[in-house]
Amino acid sequence: MAAPAHDAVEVIVTKRDRGTLSTSQVDWMVDAYTRGAVADEQMSALLMAILLNGMDRREIADWTAAMIASGVRMDFSSLSRPTADKHSTGGVGDKITLPLAPLVAACGVAVPQLSGRGLGHTGGTLDKLEAVPGWRALLSNEEMMAQLESVGAVICAAGDGLAPADKKLYALRDVTGTVEAIPLIASSIMSKKIAEGTGALVLDVKVGSGAFMKSVDHARELAEVMVALGTDAGVRTVALLTDMDTPLGLTAGNAVEVAESVEVLAGGGPADVVELTLALAREMLAGAGRDDVDPADKLADGSAMDAWRAMISAQGGDPDAPLPVARETHVVTAPADGVLTRLDAMAVGMAAWRLGAGRERKEDPVQAGAGVVWHARPGDAVRAGEPLFTLHTDTPERFDRALASLEGGYDVSAPGTAYTPRPLVIDRVG
Amino acid sequence: MAAPAHDAVEVIVTKRDRGTLSTSQVDWMVDAYTRGAVADEQMSALLMAILLNGMDRREIADWTAAMIASGVRMDFSSLSRPTADKHSTGGVGDKITLPLAPLVAACGVAVPQLSGRGLGHTGGTLDKLEAVPGWRALLSNEEMMAQLESVGAVICAAGDGLAPADKKLYALRDVTGTVEAIPLIASSIMSKKIAEGTGALVLDVKVGSGAFMKSVDHARELAEVMVALGTDAGVRTVALLTDMDTPLGLTAGNAVEVAESVEVLAGGGPADVVELTLALAREMLAGAGRDDVDPADKLADGSAMDAWRAMISAQGGDPDAPLPVARETHVVTAPADGVLTRLDAMAVGMAAWRLGAGRERKEDPVQAGAGVVWHARPGDAVRAGEPLFTLHTDTPERFDRALASLEGGYDVSAPGTAYTPRPLVIDRVG
Repeated sequence: MAAPAHDAVEVIVTKRDRGTLSTSQVDWMVDAYTRGAVADEQMSALLMAILLNGMDRREIADWTAAMIASGVRMDFSSLSRPTADKHSTGGVGDKITLPLAPLVAACGVAVPQLSGRGLGHTGGTLDKLEAVPGWRALLSNEEMMAQLESVGAVICAAGDGLAPADKKLYALRDVTGTVEAIPLIASSIMSKKIAEGTGALVLDVKVGSGAFMKSVDHARELAEVMVALGTDAGVRTVALLTDMDTPLGLTAGNAVEVAESVEVLAGGGPADVVELTLALAREMLAGAGRDDVDPADKLADGSAMDAWRAMISAQGGDPDAPLPVARETHVVTAPADGVLTRLDAMAVGMAAWRLGAGRERKEDPVQAGAGVVWHARPGDAVRAGEPLFTLHTDTPERFDRALASLEGGYDVSAPGTAYTPRPLVIDRVG
Repeated sequence: MAAPAHDAVEVIVTKRDRGTLSTSQVDWMVDAYTRGAVADEQMSALLMAILLNGMDRREIADWTAAMIASGVRMDFSSLSRPTADKHSTGGVGDKITLPLAPLVAACGVAVPQLSGRGLGHTGGTLDKLEAVPGWRALLSNEEMMAQLESVGAVICAAGDGLAPADKKLYALRDVTGTVEAIPLIASSIMSKKIAEGTGALVLDVKVGSGAFMKSVDHARELAEVMVALGTDAGVRTVALLTDMDTPLGLTAGNAVEVAESVEVLAGGGPADVVELTLALAREMLAGAGRDDVDPADKLADGSAMDAWRAMISAQGGDPDAPLPVARETHVVTAPADGVLTRLDAMAVGMAAWRLGAGRERKEDPVQAGAGVVWHARPGDAVRAGEPLFTLHTDTPERFDRALASLEGGYDVSAPGTAYTPRPLVIDRVG
């Protein structure tokens, strides 16, 4: 057997001493870690060195390529229509994928969305869809292809074969304080999206209190790295930086977010959810070469709703079944007459999570009915004693901690106070 | 059961984000790691963050105290004489402990030296002494106490009970590129020496090509941190910064270094070895309150040699037995008439290591007879064709790689070239 090209300590020491990892070092390290030849404690030392000392664009591209090479790549070139996908870095009340995927499908572009479950306060698309009775997240590759051809939209769980190195690395980063590094975040997201095989990709990079990226500068840096990775890999990639100081829409949870998404598909729903769904749809259509279609028409004429019903049915769900409802509710009323001038996304996200909508450990179940519904958006007038929030849970002992999360998370100012919202779409990269 | 005071990710993130670890965080982390409640991959991420972001003096003191608290502490207060010990950070040809311990014992101060085996190019004191037929490194605490009372000097292996956290951490640092951090080096050395219970301690901090610390500034920083740790723990501690650009004496290996040490004890030996032995002995005697005794007298009158013989015999060794000799030798001759103006400690150390005097992995055996003997010191005149080095090994296939190490490791300059040596003792801290 030939001697290995590298050893773990040499690679770690290179990055520790602010050196640049060679392509060969990155390939060897990611492959050896995936095979188990490099130990967790060695990889975590390297991850901390990467977090603190950074990686340049070439290193990030190599790291992403090595993670893609650790697994299989999907190929949708045999489909009769172009493909486009969307990825959000995670926000509170961010149900946009639910109306977006069928809307884009209704415009003639296939959406092969491999999605995840939530961990922490931001929720996961699969958790939300699993609130629909009968719906299942696991599809074979053949089922996925058939559904993309017939319906045009699939939202399902990523198989184990896609970027397995990322899966192993993500679990390690989670327990070693090495999640918050732009090179690692960018390569994790982009390795899965590139391996997924989409032709075009729109990134929704969230900025604000409820998002992973708190500042516009950090969000723009992450967006630029990801757009470059996608573009270099032949995926037409753009990113929108969008506000996450305020949660999206009027709901955060699982069934409550599905209900809100169906309202949007029916032509109604909160204005911000509609606005962001259309903005992302237009970017996806442009990336797929179909900017001749106006997605607003497909919401208005019911064809997006038809695609939703077909997508849910194809995965075993009943689009007409009543959604699960939590066993208990608790109402928080407005303390005084006035104007809601602040609603903090993190506070709402934590409350929803503590009510049971999210999970603490990845093996925990979630409650389909749990979540928070708010009855006013920043800028809206409120009246003393009228409902401001309704909290939903099957386990009322959770109310106290959820209420503690909400406390200090909103401001009601004197009647007539002016409110100027931050624009929903802050910037575009790509 | 009460909730744990901390969790690993919180502690890691504190240091990652350049915060200061609290005493409670340090205590919890070291204890939880020793118990196995914190995983290797979590500790290695923290170690890398410490290496890159540093620790202040209070954090280092806490870290050291936590490692001491992980095990037992020895107590020599019942001995009839004061105690003093020496620790070297590791150099090539550094056999000083061998003549030093019996010399200081002959001056009336007990030397309870817990020592280690070598890993890498610097060799280990126990490996050297094990070249003496019959000598054994493992003593019970009772044997150690009895020998300290009767002979006054013990050099033996540290038991598992002393700072077990350090043992576990050291093994982890070795495979994760986190050895080279002053806070971690200082706390590792000092936790063992403080737990060992010596009353006075002299640190020999090596500086130069063959040492861990390449620059005087780094060595001084390490020395200052260690002296402060010892002093704060009630151990009278000083440090000498000594040269390790050039190897000590004329030998690097195991039996060859024992033979040189016996020459020194007999009143001869290389001048630099004698000088450093006496300098360290004087510091140890001063720390133990016995600076009324001149150790040079004890070399001259044979009492240091008597103490050596008693120390070796008490641990089963035969001080009169012939030392092991390697099966093969290879001579390197001087290329021309001239002056040896450079002899690189790292080159000599690597050659001795490759000849079998040291080990690659900690479970490897060492060859008692292997090593390098040099026949000139920098400043000496050499003649073309006369021996410059003699290489010793039982396994002649090792000669090639040892010769490759030596290549470029020495300069022979034109006859009459002036040579100004760097002082052996560069500085004193404490």
